[in-house]
Amino acid sequence: MSSGGRFLIVGGAGFIGSHFTDHLLGPGGAAGVTLYDNFSSGKEWHYAHHGADARLRVVRADAADLDALCAAMTGHDVVIHLASNPDIAAAMTDPDIDFRQGTVLTRNVAEAMRRTGTRRILYASGSGIYGDLGEREAHEDHGPLIPVSPYGASKLAGEALLSAYAAMFDLRAVVFRFGNVVGPRQTHGVGFDFIRRLRQDPTRLRILGDGMQSKSYIHVSDVVAAVLLAHARVTDPFRAFNVATGDYITVRDIAEVAVECAGLTAGSVTYELTGGRGGWKGDVPVIRLNTDRIRALGWTCSRGCRDALRDAMNAMRRELDEGHA
Amino acid sequence: MSSGGRFLIVGGAGFIGSHFTDHLLGPGGAAGVTLYDNFSSGKEWHYAHHGADARLRVVRADAADLDALCAAMTGHDVVIHLASNPDIAAAMTDPDIDFRQGTVLTRNVAEAMRRTGTRRILYASGSGIYGDLGEREAHEDHGPLIPVSPYGASKLAGEALLSAYAAMFDLRAVVFRFGNVVGPRQTHGVGFDFIRRLRQDPTRLRILGDGMQSKSYIHVSDVVAAVLLAHARVTDPFRAFNVATGDYITVRDIAEVAVECAGLTAGSVTYELTGGRGGWKGDVPVIRLNTDRIRALGWTCSRGCRDALRDAMNAMRRELDEGHA
Repeated sequence: MSSGGRFLIVGGAGFIGSHFTDHLLGPGGAAGVTLYDNFSSGKEWHYAHHGADARLRVVRADAADLDALCAAMTGHDVVIHLASNPDIAAAMTDPDIDFRQGTVLTRNVAEAMRRTGTRRILYASGSGIYGDLGEREAHEDHGPLIPVSPYGASKLAGEALLSAYAAMFDLRAVVFRFGNVVGPRQTHGVGFDFIRRLRQDPTRLRILGDGMQSKSYIHVSDVVAAVLLAHARVTDPFRAFNVATGDYITVRDIAEVAVECAGLTAGSVTYELTGGRGGWKGDVPVIRLNTDRIRALGWTCSRGCRDALRDAMNAMRRELDEGHA
Repeated sequence: MSSGGRFLIVGGAGFIGSHFTDHLLGPGGAAGVTLYDNFSSGKEWHYAHHGADARLRVVRADAADLDALCAAMTGHDVVIHLASNPDIAAAMTDPDIDFRQGTVLTRNVAEAMRRTGTRRILYASGSGIYGDLGEREAHEDHGPLIPVSPYGASKLAGEALLSAYAAMFDLRAVVFRFGNVVGPRQTHGVGFDFIRRLRQDPTRLRILGDGMQSKSYIHVSDVVAAVLLAHARVTDPFRAFNVATGDYITVRDIAEVAVECAGLTAGSVTYELTGGRGGWKGDVPVIRLNTDRIRALGWTCSRGCRDALRDAMNAMRRELDEGHA
């Protein structure tokens, strides 16, 4: 699909941002791609292979700095906003982190767009806005929205602000509530933790909770395709999409995929379950996302959970071997 | 009903706060009432008549000052959070005002509660969280929530944060989506504007929009009763209530009540309509709120829109005569 125009990716040097960069600098791609990143979890090697491409620009700055963000945004057509606290459990010890690194940054992104006249935003929201619905499948129009983590609250606050800015200041926002995104260059998440821990000790694996948490793990390439398809097709001022595989996997089953990807023999690893329904306070143990809306645009998901996780964890092994830790 | 305990009212010197103060310092009232206010729209005369009551304490400080807020909150049982930018239309020229004076303040209130171990909050949210539903009646569980003003977005952000803090940090939050609140000591709003303008020029009255905006105007005494009833009855960690009269009135009809309350003859005032569906960008011209949930607790509304507005505007006349401008 065509992805013309000049893109600014806030959080662009991170895991997901690097895949947008690869896609947008590929065939039929963008006129320009600017990565705006404070490198808190962004990495230079995520985009180093594009070093010679004159369309790529990197701005090392924080989205908390509104003036710097405005300066960097000027002249762009589309903002992809991915910047966020990546550690959802951090709120247990730092309750305010998602406000500072979520709500406030999205306010700055929206304000920078208004000030610079940048009209289109593609926003990485999250399924955390729905709260804990158990086995109930969340449609995009679900109500009530009762987030159970500061992370989910910050995503809902971000959506609400973009919705208001769309109505007041002619922004056009598409917001995405992803399943857990996995793939090469992943810098956090359960599969990432499992692979790292199994390298340290291949005889045992600690699993947070009872291991029966069940969610959708979607490959980053499917996420990039969904976002850019919606960007091409959606003309509404504000529109939300769930983006998930359609299948689900438990954490216990992820552990088995991790053991396999680590090259270990099934049964040789002792699972140590910490117990409890969720992995941590604020964790939603079961997430079911209805994806009819994004599929109605023509999107299909190329990989199920197990394949996506296997590809991600195999990539992590290679990356760790190459010294990207 | 019993309203025991020590209450901190953030924004307590304002219009609505002063009525909570009157009630809580009345018979069977609270052990203590602290008004925390920056006096941006709060007034000393709102509570001056309680001057001799040792249960009343006034802290002149800003909720933006988290340390001051924590210090003032220590030792209280219940927070009533009313602080907010009162001028919804201000976002047209100061788009960030509802973030600074809404979203950020509610974050501070929630954080102060967590730090001081204060568990109960009664939060003045708003019908703005629903966005523009036209004639559709909003139930509390309505979705999707697509606010069209930064004011509505800030209220939704506040609710989302309180919901997350309730789940993570054992706060117990009751949030209220009021109709337009009117009554004595009102410091803003359409009736207030009408009465002031008619004193300046009793021959003509400018009406924003086409005058067909239709909303519920609820008397502040009914609001106080609903909030304190829900406080007494609700045990859920997080619960939302619409609070409105059940009837509706157009701005054009409010103008007629204003003319009557101003002691002018119907027909002697020329209405000058500025035109357009809403009063300003971000205004929701038609609001319909389902109130079955609060009524199921036993709440009844003592005044309809017209009576509530008449009482409010008659009080405004008296207050203007007494030099409270």
